[in-house]
Amino acid sequence: MLKALAIDVGGTKIYNAVIDENGNILGEVEKYSTPKAFDEIKKVFKEIISKHEQDVDVIAFSTCGAVNNENTGIVGSTGNIAKEYPSMPFTDLSKKPVFVENDANCAAWAEYKIGASKNTTVSVMITLGTGVGGGIIINGKLLKGQNGAAGEMHFKMRTDKHRKCSCGTWDCFEIYASGTGLKLTAQEMTNNPDITTYDVVEGVQNKNDKMIEILDKWQNDIADGIIGLANLFDPDCVVLSGSMAEFVNTEMIENKVNNEIVTTPVKIKKAQAGNYSGMIGAALLGIESLK
Amino acid sequence: MLKALAIDVGGTKIYNAVIDENGNILGEVEKYSTPKAFDEIKKVFKEIISKHEQDVDVIAFSTCGAVNNENTGIVGSTGNIAKEYPSMPFTDLSKKPVFVENDANCAAWAEYKIGASKNTTVSVMITLGTGVGGGIIINGKLLKGQNGAAGEMHFKMRTDKHRKCSCGTWDCFEIYASGTGLKLTAQEMTNNPDITTYDVVEGVQNKNDKMIEILDKWQNDIADGIIGLANLFDPDCVVLSGSMAEFVNTEMIENKVNNEIVTTPVKIKKAQAGNYSGMIGAALLGIESLK
Repeated sequence: MLKALAIDVGGTKIYNAVIDENGNILGEVEKYSTPKAFDEIKKVFKEIISKHEQDVDVIAFSTCGAVNNENTGIVGSTGNIAKEYPSMPFTDLSKKPVFVENDANCAAWAEYKIGASKNTTVSVMITLGTGVGGGIIINGKLLKGQNGAAGEMHFKMRTDKHRKCSCGTWDCFEIYASGTGLKLTAQEMTNNPDITTYDVVEGVQNKNDKMIEILDKWQNDIADGIIGLANLFDPDCVVLSGSMAEFVNTEMIENKVNNEIVTTPVKIKKAQAGNYSGMIGAALLGIESLK
Repeated sequence: MLKALAIDVGGTKIYNAVIDENGNILGEVEKYSTPKAFDEIKKVFKEIISKHEQDVDVIAFSTCGAVNNENTGIVGSTGNIAKEYPSMPFTDLSKKPVFVENDANCAAWAEYKIGASKNTTVSVMITLGTGVGGGIIINGKLLKGQNGAAGEMHFKMRTDKHRKCSCGTWDCFEIYASGTGLKLTAQEMTNNPDITTYDVVEGVQNKNDKMIEILDKWQNDIADGIIGLANLFDPDCVVLSGSMAEFVNTEMIENKVNNEIVTTPVKIKKAQAGNYSGMIGAALLGIESLK
C-alpha cells in the first residue's frame, strides 16, 4: 500500500500527516504555526520531511496559492504568507518525489475520491470561509487552466462597485458568499457597523426575524452564484465546504438553483471528507502521480 | 481525405455544405428557411442528406439546443424552433455515421482548430448576437458537463431583478452582453424606449458622445463578465464571435480584464474562422469522431 506524507500549508497553520492510498490518516496529525519568514517556513518543511520521508513514497503539499500545471511550485501571489513563498523550491526538499497542489483543489479531489462528489462527471467545490475557494473536477481531472490558476471564485455579483473584494476589484462572489460577506450583508441590512457573523448565527438560533432575513439574503447570493456556475459547467454536484458551510440550507439552495438554471439538475451537498480533506486530497493526488 | 456533409440548424435558417478534414468548404453552401413544423424540418434534412451522403464519410449537424454527450441528439429545450425538435432521430437519417453538436460548441471548435484560439490550452468562445452563446475548450476537449448542457452564458451580472433574461430568470450575462442587451442599455441611458442598436452604432460612427458612452457601458459589462470567466477557467484566449462582435474594442476589454483578474493574462480576440464556423467545426468534430 503506497503512502504519502501530506503537508497542508495555510497562512496561519501548517499541518502534516501520513496518509495511505485509500485516504486513511495513519497516526497523528501534527500542527505548526506558519512562521512569518520564508526561511523559517522552509525549515519547518525540512523538519517535517526529515521526520517522515523514510516511511512514505511521496511528499504531497496542499498549499495556499495557485500551483503550476507540473505540480512543482507556486504561480503568482498567495495572500497572507511570506511574500517569497512562491519561490519555494518544493521539489528540492526531499529525495522522494514531491507533489504540490492548491489546497482548494486538494479538498475538491478528496470529496471526489472519498466524499460528497464521488462518481460524478463534473463537480464544483466551493469553500465558504473567511474567503471563498474553489476546485472544479471535469471527467476525472482537476480544472487547472493555462497556468494552474483556474477555479477562482471571483466572478461579479454586481457591476456598480458596491463592495471591495480581497482580490483588489469589486463585488466578486467571494465578498458576498464568504463569512466576510455575511458580516457585510448584516451591516448593510441593520445599519449596525459592529454586527458580526456570530451575532447573525446566534440570532437565527434564537429565531430572530431580522437575523433570519439576513442569513436568507446571504444564502440567496450563494444560490445566485451557483446558478452561474451550474449554467457554465452543467455539474452533477456542487459541494459546499469550509467553516461557513454549516449555516447553509442545501435543500433551499438546490431548489432555487434547479428552478433557475437552463442546464440539467444539480445536487447541492455539504462536504463529507472531513477537516483534513486538503491533506487527504494531496496524498491521493500525490500517490496517483506515481502511477 | 475524409469529408463531412455539415448541416447548420438555426431557428430561422438551415445551411449545408460539404467540408473536408482541413476545414475547407467544397462547392456551394446551400440555404433553406427553417420550416415551422417538425416533419417539415425532418423532410429538409432528408432532402439534404440524400443529395450528398454518397460523397461524404459522416453527416455532421451543428444545431441550436444542448446536445447529449454521445453526440446523437438534443437535451432539453432549444428556443425558437419546433417544440418536438429535441426528439429528432438524427442517427436514423442516414446510413452513414451521424454526428451532432451544439452550434456554439461547433463554432468554438472551428476557432480552436483553424481560427483565433489555435494551439491554446483553454479557450472560451462567446457569441454575441441577438442572444449570447458559449463554447469552452479545455485541453483539447469541449466542456460538455454531466449531460451536454455546459457552456451556457447565463451567470448573473446583478441580483436585484433588473432585466428579465430570455432564459426566464433575471440579469444573466446574455441580457447585458447581447445585441438585445446593448439596446436595453441604450434605452436605460437615454430614457428613449424606441432607440435601437443601429442608432447606437450609427451614433458612435458619427462621434456622438452619448452613443459612445452607451457603447462603452455595454463593453464594460462584457469585460466584467469575461473577468469572471477568466478567473474560473484561466484561459489562454477568449474569442468573441457573432454579429455584435464587430462593435467591440478587444484591446480595451483585454486591458481591463487583465488589470482585474487574479489568474494569468488572457488574450481577447475576434473570431477568425468565418461565417460558416459552425458547419466547419461540426465537420471537423464529425470527421474526428470516425478516427
